[in-house]
Amino acid sequence: MKLRVGILGATGAVGQKFVKLLDGHPWFEVTALAASERSAGKPYHLAAHWLEDTPIPPKTAQIIVQNAETDLLDCDFVFSGLDASVAGDVEEQYARAGYPVISNAKNFRMHPQVPLLIPEVNADHLALIDRQDWGSSGFIVTNPNCASVGITLALKPLYDAFGIETVMVTTLQALSGAGYPGVPSLDAVANVVPFIGGEEDKVETEPLKLLGKLSSIGVEPAQIGISAQCTRVPVIEGHLATASVKLTTSHVPLSAVLKAIASFKADSEIARLPTSPDRVLDYSPDHAFPQPRRHSQAGKGMTVSIGRVRECPVLDFKLVCLAHNTIRGAAGGALLNAELLAARGKLKHR
Amino acid sequence: MKLRVGILGATGAVGQKFVKLLDGHPWFEVTALAASERSAGKPYHLAAHWLEDTPIPPKTAQIIVQNAETDLLDCDFVFSGLDASVAGDVEEQYARAGYPVISNAKNFRMHPQVPLLIPEVNADHLALIDRQDWGSSGFIVTNPNCASVGITLALKPLYDAFGIETVMVTTLQALSGAGYPGVPSLDAVANVVPFIGGEEDKVETEPLKLLGKLSSIGVEPAQIGISAQCTRVPVIEGHLATASVKLTTSHVPLSAVLKAIASFKADSEIARLPTSPDRVLDYSPDHAFPQPRRHSQAGKGMTVSIGRVRECPVLDFKLVCLAHNTIRGAAGGALLNAELLAARGKLKHR
Amino acid sequence: MKLRVGILGATGAVGQKFVKLLDGHPWFEVTALAASERSAGKPYHLAAHWLEDTPIPPKTAQIIVQNAETDLLDCDFVFSGLDASVAGDVEEQYARAGYPVISNAKNFRMHPQVPLLIPEVNADHLALIDRQDWGSSGFIVTNPNCASVGITLALKPLYDAFGIETVMVTTLQALSGAGYPGVPSLDAVANVVPFIGGEEDKVETEPLKLLGKLSSIGVEPAQIGISAQCTRVPVIEGHLATASVKLTTSHVPLSAVLKAIASFKADSEIARLPTSPDRVLDYSPDHAFPQPRRHSQAGKGMTVSIGRVRECPVLDFKLVCLAHNTIRGAAGGALLNAELLAARGKLKHR
Amino acid sequence: MKLRVGILGATGAVGQKFVKLLDGHPWFEVTALAASERSAGKPYHLAAHWLEDTPIPPKTAQIIVQNAETDLLDCDFVFSGLDASVAGDVEEQYARAGYPVISNAKNFRMHPQVPLLIPEVNADHLALIDRQDWGSSGFIVTNPNCASVGITLALKPLYDAFGIETVMVTTLQALSGAGYPGVPSLDAVANVVPFIGGEEDKVETEPLKLLGKLSSIGVEPAQIGISAQCTRVPVIEGHLATASVKLTTSHVPLSAVLKAIASFKADSEIARLPTSPDRVLDYSPDHAFPQPRRHSQAGKGMTVSIGRVRECPVLDFKLVCLAHNTIRGAAGGALLNAELLAARGKLKHR
Repeated sequence: MKLRVGILGATGAVGQKFVKLLDGHPWFEVTALAASERSAGKPYHLAAHWLEDTPIPPKTAQIIVQNAETDLLDCDFVFSGLDASVAGDVEEQYARAGYPVISNAKNFRMHPQVPLLIPEVNADHLALIDRQDWGSSGFIVTNPNCASVGITLALKPLYDAFGIETVMVTTLQALSGAGYPGVPSLDAVANVVPFIGGEEDKVETEPLKLLGKLSSIGVEPAQIGISAQCTRVPVIEGHLATASVKLTTSHVPLSAVLKAIASFKADSEIARLPTSPDRVLDYSPDHAFPQPRRHSQAGKGMTVSIGRVRECPVLDFKLVCLAHNTIRGAAGGALLNAELLAARGKLKHR
Repeated sequence: MKLRVGILGATGAVGQKFVKLLDGHPWFEVTALAASERSAGKPYHLAAHWLEDTPIPPKTAQIIVQNAETDLLDCDFVFSGLDASVAGDVEEQYARAGYPVISNAKNFRMHPQVPLLIPEVNADHLALIDRQDWGSSGFIVTNPNCASVGITLALKPLYDAFGIETVMVTTLQALSGAGYPGVPSLDAVANVVPFIGGEEDKVETEPLKLLGKLSSIGVEPAQIGISAQCTRVPVIEGHLATASVKLTTSHVPLSAVLKAIASFKADSEIARLPTSPDRVLDYSPDHAFPQPRRHSQAGKGMTVSIGRVRECPVLDFKLVCLAHNTIRGAAGGALLNAELLAARGKLKHR
Repeated sequence: MKLRVGILGATGAVGQKFVKLLDGHPWFEVTALAASERSAGKPYHLAAHWLEDTPIPPKTAQIIVQNAETDLLDCDFVFSGLDASVAGDVEEQYARAGYPVISNAKNFRMHPQVPLLIPEVNADHLALIDRQDWGSSGFIVTNPNCASVGITLALKPLYDAFGIETVMVTTLQALSGAGYPGVPSLDAVANVVPFIGGEEDKVETEPLKLLGKLSSIGVEPAQIGISAQCTRVPVIEGHLATASVKLTTSHVPLSAVLKAIASFKADSEIARLPTSPDRVLDYSPDHAFPQPRRHSQAGKGMTVSIGRVRECPVLDFKLVCLAHNTIRGAAGGALLNAELLAARGKLKHR
Repeated sequence: MKLRVGILGATGAVGQKFVKLLDGHPWFEVTALAASERSAGKPYHLAAHWLEDTPIPPKTAQIIVQNAETDLLDCDFVFSGLDASVAGDVEEQYARAGYPVISNAKNFRMHPQVPLLIPEVNADHLALIDRQDWGSSGFIVTNPNCASVGITLALKPLYDAFGIETVMVTTLQALSGAGYPGVPSLDAVANVVPFIGGEEDKVETEPLKLLGKLSSIGVEPAQIGISAQCTRVPVIEGHLATASVKLTTSHVPLSAVLKAIASFKADSEIARLPTSPDRVLDYSPDHAFPQPRRHSQAGKGMTVSIGRVRECPVLDFKLVCLAHNTIRGAAGGALLNAELLAARGKLKHR
């Protein structure tokens, strides 16, 4: 019998992606949806301005949307695609009421007892949930920002093998990262906007927690200096990033870097999860790889594509990485987190 | 009486921009055009697949195109918008025949006796032309690559005031930089291509010559470490770049950096040239500044726009700069070079 | 001494275009601006999210914006770029207060005593203003919808020469027609939206009034059957339309149609107006003409481009036409209307 | 045991789509590939500039490409995605050699003994293959042009129920319809090109054969007057068309038109084919339906989406239709044709 899932913020862009990805899921089944007061009381297909290129799953389309701020959904756990302006209060309320909360919102990402989780990177951080105390059996698990996740996954094998001292990164981010209606078309078409509010700070700090070491006093952040510049480009899906990296180890040859990336694999526990891609990282020596429109869908949006790994005349190595921002970087990442929790027996029928 | 101008590579994208910018020029007049054998013998309006959004100047439209590889144009000096595959031979042939050659091609940019020139940056390098010996009074002057020019102009005031040790740069380059037909639309629309052949090398080396010091033995390159990553984005005109800079001087406050940029001016000799913009650099504190579609046309395409100047958590400062790639970065830059030569009496009626 | 101009709706996309086009105008000078309550009290450069690619004219930038719904501007006449939701009341209030109102809004376009005016098409309709009675010397003049204007100008020479029975038209309209923020980028990039609210009705009716005959009882609409389908395409500026036309006259040869278009000229009274383009219609036999990005700027945005005139296997002739939607189709069209009024002595210093 | 398939023109855009759609096909298996001389002798993954967003199927990637003009592939039948410049000769050669040729090329579409086939429209036309005489058991079957197919499917239920007298159509066609490299990005981004060579003629004639009646002397074309205007818009996949239709039957109410569309179904023979979509036509009353980026993938690219069905003030009804140009309009359409042939026993192991 499948676990019953509620989705908070179900009508937004991330909420819609949850609905799509959960359609036909082997372990989970959507049974309840919540959004803002404006949507409450309507069947989902009337409440949501549906943006996906496949139809709304028929059963989900008929679910009556509830009010995320006042109702508690009838389900075993919740995904949160809520806007940051309300996610803090609502998610805390669910945790206090005993729900596991698998959140894509930023509010609790840097909270000392809340795991900021990418299963292939820091599955051990899940132990933090036992240190959460919401006066109930509830807990909160978060996934990183859509721009942080690709970079962190690309850096992970280098960090493990050689240590990393410094990363200089510039992101070229897709329009879907801003939700809907999001970026006005007159700002987007044939243009670049060299600013995304709050984004550079996230890219400079989240990877440090993700790559950090869990100790008895919490997560000790990785000692990496990251500098980020974030831009918005007229792309639908797929955040691209250029990165230059200085390793802690000296004189690492390019071949060793390529080998570390090529041999990177998820632990077998993770690799067996339904949403886990065949390849966590996909490296290609093709000089025009990766490209958002062509490669974001790799591994059904869960694979991070890496290309142009080469020496840097200033630091040690340069590379380009690409991750699907609304799948690996949002709903898909949260879903993988939930699957890991389920596999470890942390999600139960209520 | 105006100087008579010939344009080599007149039918290409850069050649067309020369034609457009020279329309109504106070000092120069187009009298001859050359292109490939395929175009030779046709009137310009039939030979060129015109790409500009204003019509071909009527007089130029009727000029019969000559063969750039075999004919010598009847004019006082030439602009070269030739493709690199033929520019080397043809430009040398013109120099040997006694013509001043004002070239946008890459072939002679790093030649020790050829000035790589941005008038506001290194007008003194023009002295190099007296050291050229083509067996005639001819000489060659070049302007930098379309991606190098914006970055170099943005760095110039910081280099002068504080010295620069390191620059990490990522470019987001417009489609027009690839000429016509250039990038296929299926590679461009809603996509980014993270590779432009040969471009990173140019961005890592040309600024060193531009900011270098002229001595009796040539140009001593500036001692700056530059690392570049170059990408192609679906923008029509305007190359954007993100840059992080480490200064030679320690503890420079942000206010001093902003002041250096804001107070930067061209020498009065340069400022009086017809194509010289009112402001060489345009800085705005607006967080979404600059944007290619909105700001490339500043100073009729000759102003470099700078925004988002802020501290860098790894190096010293970050900034974003934007230059019009086919004006300041190609035909307009070459035209300003020619105007400086004319003002100094180096271009004469033949 | 220039006439003093007020702009209603000055912060919107059309209002901004008025500001831009009036910069340096030989007859008119912007002295007052009004917008919504939210903007009132702020200097224009802070109230407007400026969208043009040239800077705000410095003097206009400092004007304090007033409240369009409550204040009466100190000026000789007003341009209205107001949203239809408020334009009706505000424009009537100005007319009652004795102001000439030159409006781009739709509210009064079909009013029997209000001229819907394209100077090259129906300058004689201006006589209608003498039949308006607002209890003052005020009056209202309107210009057509941005999609109607190009089609009407393209049809005008055919209507005059041969009569028109039927027109089947499909429009491909630019994003700027929807204002700012307007169309969300996720609806626009690499997409077409085959619906624009209210637009088809305007395209099917406005040309009938424009081409109609002024009589003692009002404008008798032209007896043409028009069917329109309106779509939104990812273009910044320039509404393209395909049209098939059945003429009233039988057996008109293609050459006669081409001659009618090519020989079309504005009356000398109109042709002398400052904003009047050299050519009202620009026809080219180039099979890929016209294109929005390349040809919208013809005649500084006031020329309508016509191409692909050919026989229609069902009706008589097919053609493609293009007009700049925010210049000829909005602010520029209104400006030309004001110039005609001024030339006829209908705008006076107050 | 699966039928062995050869693909002619395998490296082009349509050829690649054949490769993708045939991956995992229940009846067919790719065993041989051919392209131009330039590709011959190379493994497919090196010969093709792969454009799809999923990887090349591994087995196909290793197939050595042969020369389409000189070699005869070892297979049971061939799909042809050849360019029209060579398709005529090569396809005839295969037919003479006894192969069934399922072609997407235009060369034989209007040949009196060659079926121009959309299974849901004119499956009975397949009988024509028995009238072909290539001196062997070979035959040729074609599918229509990518712009014709959506319009024909949208008109089919109206033609059957009410008859059609006249159709006025304007297409907004995707870039992928031009193949690769196809349309230069400088012509495509933020632009419309109002011309596609040869396209209007196809749209005006192919539907007449498709909707025609098979008799002993051939296909009697439907007596419909069609006028087409074809434009290229910056969309990746999905040809949209606006159409206005005059029915033969008078006074048909809108409800009857909607019912004819909504109740349209493929015959059960067709509906059972593997590539047959659940719904041939998908109608929605949503006023912004259909859109290329959102709805082209309906039915895995085989469903035609229809929206905005409404009365026409000049003819009888207007509508908008959308079809995936490289699936339903090319490789998918040809695949469905092959499946019908296989189901009828016309494709055999050689």
